[in-house]
Amino acid sequence: MSQTDPEVHPTVEDVAEDIATMEIRGAATIADAAAEALAAQAEDSDATDPEAFRAEMRAAARRLRETRPTAVSLPNSLRYVLGAMEGDSVEELRESVTAGAEEFRTELDQAQENLGRIGANRLRDGDTVMTHCHSTDALSCVEHALEQGKEIHAIVKETRPRKQGHITARWLREMDVPVTLIVDNAARRYLDQTDHVLVGADSIAADGSVINKVGTSGLAVNARERGVPIMVAAQTLKLHPDTMTGHTVEIEMRDEREVLTLDEEDEIGDVTVENPAFDVTPPRYVDAIVTERGQFPPESIVTLMRELFGDQQGGEPWEK
Amino acid sequence: MSQTDPEVHPTVEDVAEDIATMEIRGAATIADAAAEALAAQAEDSDATDPEAFRAEMRAAARRLRETRPTAVSLPNSLRYVLGAMEGDSVEELRESVTAGAEEFRTELDQAQENLGRIGANRLRDGDTVMTHCHSTDALSCVEHALEQGKEIHAIVKETRPRKQGHITARWLREMDVPVTLIVDNAARRYLDQTDHVLVGADSIAADGSVINKVGTSGLAVNARERGVPIMVAAQTLKLHPDTMTGHTVEIEMRDEREVLTLDEEDEIGDVTVENPAFDVTPPRYVDAIVTERGQFPPESIVTLMRELFGDQQGGEPWEK
Amino acid sequence: MSQTDPEVHPTVEDVAEDIATMEIRGAATIADAAAEALAAQAEDSDATDPEAFRAEMRAAARRLRETRPTAVSLPNSLRYVLGAMEGDSVEELRESVTAGAEEFRTELDQAQENLGRIGANRLRDGDTVMTHCHSTDALSCVEHALEQGKEIHAIVKETRPRKQGHITARWLREMDVPVTLIVDNAARRYLDQTDHVLVGADSIAADGSVINKVGTSGLAVNARERGVPIMVAAQTLKLHPDTMTGHTVEIEMRDEREVLTLDEEDEIGDVTVENPAFDVTPPRYVDAIVTERGQFPPESIVTLMRELFGDQQGGEPWEK
Amino acid sequence: MSQTDPEVHPTVEDVAEDIATMEIRGAATIADAAAEALAAQAEDSDATDPEAFRAEMRAAARRLRETRPTAVSLPNSLRYVLGAMEGDSVEELRESVTAGAEEFRTELDQAQENLGRIGANRLRDGDTVMTHCHSTDALSCVEHALEQGKEIHAIVKETRPRKQGHITARWLREMDVPVTLIVDNAARRYLDQTDHVLVGADSIAADGSVINKVGTSGLAVNARERGVPIMVAAQTLKLHPDTMTGHTVEIEMRDEREVLTLDEEDEIGDVTVENPAFDVTPPRYVDAIVTERGQFPPESIVTLMRELFGDQQGGEPWEK
Amino acid sequence: MSQTDPEVHPTVEDVAEDIATMEIRGAATIADAAAEALAAQAEDSDATDPEAFRAEMRAAARRLRETRPTAVSLPNSLRYVLGAMEGDSVEELRESVTAGAEEFRTELDQAQENLGRIGANRLRDGDTVMTHCHSTDALSCVEHALEQGKEIHAIVKETRPRKQGHITARWLREMDVPVTLIVDNAARRYLDQTDHVLVGADSIAADGSVINKVGTSGLAVNARERGVPIMVAAQTLKLHPDTMTGHTVEIEMRDEREVLTLDEEDEIGDVTVENPAFDVTPPRYVDAIVTERGQFPPESIVTLMRELFGDQQGGEPWEK
Amino acid sequence: MSQTDPEVHPTVEDVAEDIATMEIRGAATIADAAAEALAAQAEDSDATDPEAFRAEMRAAARRLRETRPTAVSLPNSLRYVLGAMEGDSVEELRESVTAGAEEFRTELDQAQENLGRIGANRLRDGDTVMTHCHSTDALSCVEHALEQGKEIHAIVKETRPRKQGHITARWLREMDVPVTLIVDNAARRYLDQTDHVLVGADSIAADGSVINKVGTSGLAVNARERGVPIMVAAQTLKLHPDTMTGHTVEIEMRDEREVLTLDEEDEIGDVTVENPAFDVTPPRYVDAIVTERGQFPPESIVTLMRELFGDQQGGEPWEK
Repeated sequence: MSQTDPEVHPTVEDVAEDIATMEIRGAATIADAAAEALAAQAEDSDATDPEAFRAEMRAAARRLRETRPTAVSLPNSLRYVLGAMEGDSVEELRESVTAGAEEFRTELDQAQENLGRIGANRLRDGDTVMTHCHSTDALSCVEHALEQGKEIHAIVKETRPRKQGHITARWLREMDVPVTLIVDNAARRYLDQTDHVLVGADSIAADGSVINKVGTSGLAVNARERGVPIMVAAQTLKLHPDTMTGHTVEIEMRDEREVLTLDEEDEIGDVTVENPAFDVTPPRYVDAIVTERGQFPPESIVTLMRELFGDQQGGEPWEK
Repeated sequence: MSQTDPEVHPTVEDVAEDIATMEIRGAATIADAAAEALAAQAEDSDATDPEAFRAEMRAAARRLRETRPTAVSLPNSLRYVLGAMEGDSVEELRESVTAGAEEFRTELDQAQENLGRIGANRLRDGDTVMTHCHSTDALSCVEHALEQGKEIHAIVKETRPRKQGHITARWLREMDVPVTLIVDNAARRYLDQTDHVLVGADSIAADGSVINKVGTSGLAVNARERGVPIMVAAQTLKLHPDTMTGHTVEIEMRDEREVLTLDEEDEIGDVTVENPAFDVTPPRYVDAIVTERGQFPPESIVTLMRELFGDQQGGEPWEK
Repeated sequence: MSQTDPEVHPTVEDVAEDIATMEIRGAATIADAAAEALAAQAEDSDATDPEAFRAEMRAAARRLRETRPTAVSLPNSLRYVLGAMEGDSVEELRESVTAGAEEFRTELDQAQENLGRIGANRLRDGDTVMTHCHSTDALSCVEHALEQGKEIHAIVKETRPRKQGHITARWLREMDVPVTLIVDNAARRYLDQTDHVLVGADSIAADGSVINKVGTSGLAVNARERGVPIMVAAQTLKLHPDTMTGHTVEIEMRDEREVLTLDEEDEIGDVTVENPAFDVTPPRYVDAIVTERGQFPPESIVTLMRELFGDQQGGEPWEK
Repeated sequence: MSQTDPEVHPTVEDVAEDIATMEIRGAATIADAAAEALAAQAEDSDATDPEAFRAEMRAAARRLRETRPTAVSLPNSLRYVLGAMEGDSVEELRESVTAGAEEFRTELDQAQENLGRIGANRLRDGDTVMTHCHSTDALSCVEHALEQGKEIHAIVKETRPRKQGHITARWLREMDVPVTLIVDNAARRYLDQTDHVLVGADSIAADGSVINKVGTSGLAVNARERGVPIMVAAQTLKLHPDTMTGHTVEIEMRDEREVLTLDEEDEIGDVTVENPAFDVTPPRYVDAIVTERGQFPPESIVTLMRELFGDQQGGEPWEK
Repeated sequence: MSQTDPEVHPTVEDVAEDIATMEIRGAATIADAAAEALAAQAEDSDATDPEAFRAEMRAAARRLRETRPTAVSLPNSLRYVLGAMEGDSVEELRESVTAGAEEFRTELDQAQENLGRIGANRLRDGDTVMTHCHSTDALSCVEHALEQGKEIHAIVKETRPRKQGHITARWLREMDVPVTLIVDNAARRYLDQTDHVLVGADSIAADGSVINKVGTSGLAVNARERGVPIMVAAQTLKLHPDTMTGHTVEIEMRDEREVLTLDEEDEIGDVTVENPAFDVTPPRYVDAIVTERGQFPPESIVTLMRELFGDQQGGEPWEK
Repeated sequence: MSQTDPEVHPTVEDVAEDIATMEIRGAATIADAAAEALAAQAEDSDATDPEAFRAEMRAAARRLRETRPTAVSLPNSLRYVLGAMEGDSVEELRESVTAGAEEFRTELDQAQENLGRIGANRLRDGDTVMTHCHSTDALSCVEHALEQGKEIHAIVKETRPRKQGHITARWLREMDVPVTLIVDNAARRYLDQTDHVLVGADSIAADGSVINKVGTSGLAVNARERGVPIMVAAQTLKLHPDTMTGHTVEIEMRDEREVLTLDEEDEIGDVTVENPAFDVTPPRYVDAIVTERGQFPPESIVTLMRELFGDQQGGEPWEK
């Protein structure tokens, strides 16, 4: 990287600070703030020649990037905006960046809505979906199906250890969807009554793997064995950029107390508790990934990644 | 059945009463008491001709059978003892019955021990087993492997909703087996570190299906996909006689409060809770059923059923 | 074989003649007549020593056997009756043979009834079965399920080229079973609404393969892919004895005019028509074979074959 | 949509009328006529400013689109031509539209030819193909293989209920291809002698599913099980645009009399006949989709859809 | 075991010595010698009461058994002969043992012949078999097929590291079978031209697993994927008795120099060489095990093991 | 093609000659020389109008192409460079060609390096890879993983007949990677200790098939069965252009003496030796193809092919 980084705009600094301290959190919120910060940098830039302007933008992007090296949505935002930068004069560059940032933020704002409308089209009147964990992208599909006048039933897995299935059940009940709640162990039996397994994603890799709440992969293997299609609802924000260059997604290990209380452990004796937050579902167990840009077989989601964020050829756009 | 049933022995009456009121409970205990009762009937019989003796024994068996029509071990016990009845005089018949009852009870007494020794032979030094629910038959295999000087590790699924995995974990810790506890959802990930899936059985059907705690079938499908062998530890007591004639095993639905507390339901809204106790694993997902009589591929367990309990040709031995 | 065959009984001659000329036809009818003929031979035998009696019986069996070398039920009948022959005197031998023949014929008479009762137990109230071709054994299962008070629906494949599905549909309608008729090509789609694929068998091989009307194997592969269990209803008469010694079952090629009329061929031009009557379904695509002796996983039907008809060790019982 | 739609050209009106009344029918003919109509609209437009011109073109496209809302080739044609529209003046717009229409029609004209040449390359000298139903795209592959000097054999499934296999057989005979005709039920057996399953498509979905004549999916599942590759020959005209936004393809149910004559039904009794025209083959059972633009694994056909017809982002090009 | 073992017969001592020093070697030769030794013990026994006779026989069996604790055929021989021992007097016991030994040896003598005749029946005229390693049991099937007038072709895998395929190729050439020799790596490609994979077995386990020359399991997995049936030719001598009680079969690791010469290692540098002699093929990848007692699906070979050698209930017959 | 081809540059002639005589060989070297030759043609062109220039370039490309009609990298090079040709004047055309050639050669120079970095990201610290044959692309992944500080172990298949595994083992030892060498037959057993199967490719087809050293497909099928991911390391140079238009890749048959020495054949007798150099692995058995442009599921590698080399629409760029 360059020796002396150009100064970055105070807005960039503030946003970087807030992301680092988790004032700003959540995949969409982070992405939105980062795009806004880049736009601020572009608008207020004093750069007098195109190269200096480009260097400034790259520096701003680097500053933002370094706050959360493992986040997924942050680099996607930076890539999108820098990818839009083009022109031969400072003014052209400035305009392209602000337009790119604007476009990105607008799309982000409507993404869940659009995704839901697309996913809803896969559901037929009278269908039963089985859910795992809690995903607002997945629920947006159900919501739009209801708006299309379809009757939808839901079988909700409780999703140990944190039982986010309860949240999903509550949301569905508020939409008046009939809900059957089951423990995760009962899933295979109820697949016989299921028309679609419908889950969200934490992130999606270039090789078509879906990283989602632990238990998703085991469910998907059983769904395939039972002949039940599995659809993943995920905004393009969840496409994991580093995986295009082979990086694997780090799986977070969470607090053992989510699994076992101290009292329970005292009762049992000294055991190791492993509590991975996510697991990896290979593409051959997924039928379709539904994004706000349309649905894709998991094996070709890399096409969309390259279209949106470039092909990483020559490294990241913020690197020199 | 015959119009006027011969009188049954008071011991038979008492045992029948105790089984019906669940004073006597547990698969092995019921089977043992029933065999003992038949022996008492035989010993004290006043029958003067062979036919009367046989009728008495059948009546006693019927009386015991009707107490718990869906139990598995009870008819197996009755079948075994009546199957041993042979001879041309009352005395020969009496002796054959008491000898049969004695043999059955002795075998029953040693069955778990023998089973454990056989199952232990499948485990190698350093192996890791993954368990589901709590099965003393399965644990007997681990115990004997330890006695053989092997080092065994265990990955224990907690087994929602009743978390019987905690009991298994405690037993294993008492044997000094290193235990890793996971939620059921994490099983597929840890199959990569597993050498054997080791479970018990509630009952086993003539078509080779294994009925066991709900979640077993989903685990078995994933184990097969990951290339991990699955062994089922089950005494012959668990072989389900009615399935030889095509009967399917009724799956008990349990109290929804095991899954969802009233408070939780208030939070969520009005949902249906389905809480099946067991599920059915097809034979193609099981590698071996380990009994006290040796190990069997699930597809040939019917051979053992016919050997031990007859082929049901001409109906049950207590029917006329 | 012996040089000078003992003379066979006129009844044996007559039956042999009638089988050869197809006066006597149909698997069960042939088997019944053969057993009756052996009984006649035994009853009227003039043999004065046991060896002569045995030689007579073998000669009678050979005479019957040679009439239809590829039939399945005929050798089964002969094997069963000769297998029952035992004793040290002519009288004992005679009695054992007539008793064996009697037993065989009685069982034969009740086999479909018993089979139906067993198969019916696999069906639950409200189930939908998909049928292929026309099998009275399979329909006996449905009939008994109805008698047990269960409601059964049927999806009937028409079964080109001879459309025996129409016969099945008519029988089912006479039992008041709601019938949906489909072309064979539509089967995979309707498997999603099917609880059991239910077919008969032309014969069953020692390696667990099911030989049945062409189209069965393709249906079974799809049923497995969709997670629908497949049950085969077949009396033990259909167990193919020669397959125990590795023989494969010859597949009959039928008249091309069943497939293509002369007019149609004129329209098309000169084509080869292949019209195999049966195909072979490997055991891994079958869940259970239901016989009058109970249900079996296809992989262990060989056990029943050996139990009923011996293990062919030392050749056929009618060979010296 | 806009309140007052601009007037559409009489040619557009005429073509719309003819499509609606099915004067114009067949996927390619409809697409061709629609492109021609848009060209007429562009050529004769009186629009004086670019926006008015664009509005006119959109109105013309809408008029055409509404005639057959479920057709596949019609919107593809409209999308292709409107997708080509670009420029800052009316003249530039006009020229781009007429050039786009011309290009589309030229490609359409040569598509089957090009497709056949590509598909033929997959076939080797001496290969045997198995066909299902009648597809001129599929036959074009065989035709070009013959032109390349290869010897090709064909196993033709008759394809109940309408037996379009007879048409295919006749075409193949006219090309001097040796033909073996079989009933659909015999397919699995003859897969052992087959080098390629070769079928056409009614339409192809963005998730890689192939919608084709009922029976295709069951054949494909068996072909995979037997290790026989399956190739689908389909012009890009068959790519179903609505599926990019999750819409599923409606399966037409046809007249029951194709399956069962009145006489047959009288014989059988009152049955329901289900006669779906098509079924859906998941991408994992297809090896390659051959189009005039090259061959594609089904999982990446969405790439071609987006390339040709845009990504539907912001709705259809004829919507405001 | 008993404190003071009865003395064993000098013949038993000699045979034991010769087995231990590998003077006597080869599965069939060992089994034959052991049966002969037991017969000698029985014939010359001075025992005056039945119990002493039984103790003597058990001691003789123990002496023989301890010479090669991991051999497969040795305990089978001992089990067969002791299993035949019955009677209430020394004379009856003696006769039963010598008759049992005689029977065992006669069967052994004809086993390969009988097996070959059975296996040959699975082969059709014109079939191509693919072989792995060298098995005289497997070749016996080919030999008998030729005798039946069938034309057989062979694709012979060379079978690294010891290239026993060369021996097989030579045997086949001597029978005038056309041979195509391939490296092991080319097997999947040539499976498309193969009608049967035909291999022998080193031993067969009670769970249906086939232990055979390393490479068999990989071949079997590919054969299943290509739809080619796999048959295993193995005399009952190869049924592994210890596996009935769960024991696994120890896989011999052989000299690394079979894989890599010293010169080669010098060239490469310091590497670990792993050279396992055998591997384990799960029963689901095998279609039939052909023995001299008939053919069996691997899942029911345990039935034959129990029939021939008892069910191990109460330990080995030579244990007290 | 045009009647009178324009003259080609002497450099083009020389390079063509050297490729034809195999002076210039190796996929990368050929591609580099061809690009350089096209640049020379462009730089020294005397063409006075754009059309003449284009004709010259096409002629040069044709001359180069015809030297090795089946090479993979050669047409890719020509396509890339001609694909870059654009402009309205000779000067613009010249510059675009030389820039395109320059770009192609620079990328080629860094491709293996970049590919290695990407592939390394898939490997985790402590992973074990299994290799087949010798691929510098595959080894580049290991090398970069080591540079990233990861510990990598290798299980190296010897890869009969030419044992290129020995070369791989030596390279790995020079990087200090611990190596276990096995015969090809032992692979399935050692898959249980393998984290990644890592192979190169000879070429890659548009339908996602991987053509690589014979034995790859059999290994991949087993890896999938064992749940081990398989990654293919291949520069984009290996993407096979002709396969986009359906062409299949010709599999080279090599000298039988690689498999069998004359002495060995004398020993065995007259056998046919088949020695194919490569085999075809279907995309469903591959998890990721790693190129210098990123990783791709095999099913979407066609996207990259079209991006880099165009869609072949209208034939090759050097055709008229």
